[in-house]
Amino acid sequence: MAKVNISDNVINRLPRYIRYLDSILSAGVERVSSAELSRRMGLTASQIRQDLNCFGAFGQPGYGYKVSELRQHIAEILGMNTTHTAILVGAGNLGQALLSNFRFGNSSFSLIAVFDVDPAIVGKTVSGIPVYHSDDIEKFIQGSKVDAAILTLPGYVANAMAERVTNAGVKGIWNFTNEELPSAAKGSIIENVHFSDSLQVLSYHLMESKN
Amino acid sequence: MAKVNISDNVINRLPRYIRYLDSILSAGVERVSSAELSRRMGLTASQIRQDLNCFGAFGQPGYGYKVSELRQHIAEILGMNTTHTAILVGAGNLGQALLSNFRFGNSSFSLIAVFDVDPAIVGKTVSGIPVYHSDDIEKFIQGSKVDAAILTLPGYVANAMAERVTNAGVKGIWNFTNEELPSAAKGSIIENVHFSDSLQVLSYHLMESKN
Repeated sequence: MAKVNISDNVINRLPRYIRYLDSILSAGVERVSSAELSRRMGLTASQIRQDLNCFGAFGQPGYGYKVSELRQHIAEILGMNTTHTAILVGAGNLGQALLSNFRFGNSSFSLIAVFDVDPAIVGKTVSGIPVYHSDDIEKFIQGSKVDAAILTLPGYVANAMAERVTNAGVKGIWNFTNEELPSAAKGSIIENVHFSDSLQVLSYHLMESKN
Repeated sequence: MAKVNISDNVINRLPRYIRYLDSILSAGVERVSSAELSRRMGLTASQIRQDLNCFGAFGQPGYGYKVSELRQHIAEILGMNTTHTAILVGAGNLGQALLSNFRFGNSSFSLIAVFDVDPAIVGKTVSGIPVYHSDDIEKFIQGSKVDAAILTLPGYVANAMAERVTNAGVKGIWNFTNEELPSAAKGSIIENVHFSDSLQVLSYHLMESKN
């Protein structure tokens, strides 16, 4: 695929297409028009045009997009055809929730190790993944190819751990700690899951609904 | 505050301002310019202008915004000065992670009850919040004022539960189940936390960094 520059706004919308296309694919829908994408996904005509331009002009006028082809194309843009390796740091409630319920494979991530400091869990496996002591994390990263670290450890140790894993060579961080990570090495990629951002948007809409 | 119409794009950005302003407030910063907001938050000049227009023109040329005042104003827009009541449905790993670590009060939500079906936990408390049986959820909602339900239960029961709580009168759903919720009553507000969306964006940036 030719490399194109795609704005962050478009990139941030692409996973919604994947979710929507997966849902209509599993309902047996084979073709979708841009008008229908716009209506069903709540996107403006201008957003849809911007997005579809990035996907390339392979839709047919009056005939729309083949759902499986569009899905495949967007997955390719998102790098979902390459497997990324990941480690999870912090096997508390949130870490265990991800380990037992989240389908990493669907987003092309392969979870290869878990790190924690709790002697009750180090040396065991969680959901089939081995748990090592956090002291050994640099050695592990240097010995294995690790693309990303998932941080589900307590906030007060998050920044120090981000610094350790990126210094050891990890490129990306999936950050669940609700903390900013200023010490992660320059050039590393941080993707934050900020629960409070989402809750504040809900707060806004609740307040609006009362007016 | 006069009511203004604010686009979803602006609303979705506002929590980032809250986070950034909180971080500089706690570092003792008293004033911030729009140029600095733009640079530090990675927003374009046009986004900043659009946002600041919504906040009202109380910045002073060459002098910038008073951080505490700007923070207060944005919090007011987001409805963070009103307390919203919430219940949490599903006290598994993810539910317990939120109960023990997430500061609901910071986003002006008050958690008043937890619901689950597990006899080992029903009748007890988790992080000080009483746990009731899910069978009793309609009765509870009808007897108390419940603004929002936080869904942290298994995906295969998510849609049915969304229907139950919204039919009983809950206005908003904070959805962690990775499922779409088509059966929630019309007029209800659904705010999704889609872990996979965020992971796919990380996948994109990891792939980009290899090219």
